[in-house]
Amino acid sequence: MQSEKAWLQWVRRAAGEARRPEVRLGIGDDAALLRPRRGWELALTTDLLVEDVHFLRQYDTAATCGHRLVTRALSDLAAMGAEPVAVLVSSAYPEDLPAAWPRQLYRGILAALQPAQAVLAGGDVAAAPAGKILLDIVGLGQVPAGRALRRSGARAGDRIFVSGTLGLGARGRELAHTGQKPANPDDRRALKHHRRPRARWELGIALRGRASAAIDISDGLATDLDHLCAESGVGAVIDAASIPALATDRDQHGALGGGEDYELLFTVPARRRWRPPAGVTAIGSITAERGVWIADAGRRRRLPAAGWEHFSRRQR
Amino acid sequence: MQSEKAWLQWVRRAAGEARRPEVRLGIGDDAALLRPRRGWELALTTDLLVEDVHFLRQYDTAATCGHRLVTRALSDLAAMGAEPVAVLVSSAYPEDLPAAWPRQLYRGILAALQPAQAVLAGGDVAAAPAGKILLDIVGLGQVPAGRALRRSGARAGDRIFVSGTLGLGARGRELAHTGQKPANPDDRRALKHHRRPRARWELGIALRGRASAAIDISDGLATDLDHLCAESGVGAVIDAASIPALATDRDQHGALGGGEDYELLFTVPARRRWRPPAGVTAIGSITAERGVWIADAGRRRRLPAAGWEHFSRRQR
Repeated sequence: MQSEKAWLQWVRRAAGEARRPEVRLGIGDDAALLRPRRGWELALTTDLLVEDVHFLRQYDTAATCGHRLVTRALSDLAAMGAEPVAVLVSSAYPEDLPAAWPRQLYRGILAALQPAQAVLAGGDVAAAPAGKILLDIVGLGQVPAGRALRRSGARAGDRIFVSGTLGLGARGRELAHTGQKPANPDDRRALKHHRRPRARWELGIALRGRASAAIDISDGLATDLDHLCAESGVGAVIDAASIPALATDRDQHGALGGGEDYELLFTVPARRRWRPPAGVTAIGSITAERGVWIADAGRRRRLPAAGWEHFSRRQR
Repeated sequence: MQSEKAWLQWVRRAAGEARRPEVRLGIGDDAALLRPRRGWELALTTDLLVEDVHFLRQYDTAATCGHRLVTRALSDLAAMGAEPVAVLVSSAYPEDLPAAWPRQLYRGILAALQPAQAVLAGGDVAAAPAGKILLDIVGLGQVPAGRALRRSGARAGDRIFVSGTLGLGARGRELAHTGQKPANPDDRRALKHHRRPRARWELGIALRGRASAAIDISDGLATDLDHLCAESGVGAVIDAASIPALATDRDQHGALGGGEDYELLFTVPARRRWRPPAGVTAIGSITAERGVWIADAGRRRRLPAAGWEHFSRRQR
């Protein structure tokens, strides 16, 4: 690794000319300065991406890590209905890491920010202990005051929706980390999703004033639906047949507990005659009674919050 | 470690009733929501604190890590002249870490936030690889629009000041990590500073409209003065005799390159007849010619930016 000063110069050059009017001061001072649009609030999130926990250096490229890091942040912002503005990235690298790794990481970060028109506004660099790369991202978005989507707004009778196909993250990870060749178009989609995931910020923005509650699916449908219900003080019943899972995910293992899907899970009041856009699926409804249930071929069973691992053990 | 959900509940309870009107939504959703005071900007900073790099688990208590983490963030905000508002904390813990460690960490974090009237507004938790604790803090402050202190405003002729006593961080670390008993009042101050450092946010706020440039001293006077001069496109001459070093720090090793002082280094235009408050020392002046020099007993020598290590080697 090079000196912190040389590194800062490289990052500044790489970040290039991308600017946002909300970012009054970017990389290079003690702090970044931001001013949200008048009458808007700032949404702030922070996420870790840790070697051997969230990625494996032998299978996941540095560029993929950059995409995943940004997607974690933008997916949280999407779940608030916030427009992405900027990110700050902290990173700790082992002494012997070739300089190409962080450079490719930042290329991935900048490529992932570009479609969201968000900018890199700062960060921190440190040495890493024990030879493992550590990354942390701060995501900054903005949302009209009082109009952010929250986890806590779901009410009995609301319809439950998810975006995209669930389980792509789990299948993509399986393919990438076993070296299996993609066997069909779904596998190719899964691998692409694993390498270059993309958060649903456009959908999050479109849901302002429509959804009663929202959360992003980062830990699997079962866990994240449980979080949403817990914060709203409600329960839910979902229909197993309606879950947009991969055809190969026959037991819905990947969809219910796979993680890294970066899709949105949200609720819409039934009286609001909202028609979901393409790629959004109705999967059930909110109940006043606590507890999350899944209805499958006429039978109803409890969906454990711990996600697939726990769910799977109980079924056997 | 307990489940993420149980942990979140504990953190929420521990964070208690501390509230700030700027924090519209705190712990527990996909993102925190913040709204700076009308006409003010948000200052944002992120800092890592990594086991075996920034602290040693056998010598530094969890509460000390909490204080140091918060102080890193508040010190960056102080250097911008920003009023502290909130922090977000990301942490990754080894599986076998006793639950008492993160609890003591959070007690340290909350104790360090309290005098600044700043609140804990969110974060992330993950597993840590290789048995090492990883912490990252996001610091959020606010400053009247256009009035933040920057590193880039120093001009030839400006006077250079530092707050506090430099080298306390290095001496405190030495005492704590060798188990030496404090030998005198300075040692006792150094150990207290090491265990419960405190950032200079009140001074930072007081410098708005007065200082032309500011930076916090986290890597030692030599390195941070070099950063300030580089960003301002100027040079500096400092007077070795005027540096507020510890009496025992005879070669100014600790003051010039020790790190972890969390003091402010700032410049004031000479025409602004500003009288420094108690605890602030004039140490030199800014020059149009690039390069940082130290004048010692009538001799002038170059002060290498790399701080003491480099400096020391060159002197021998």
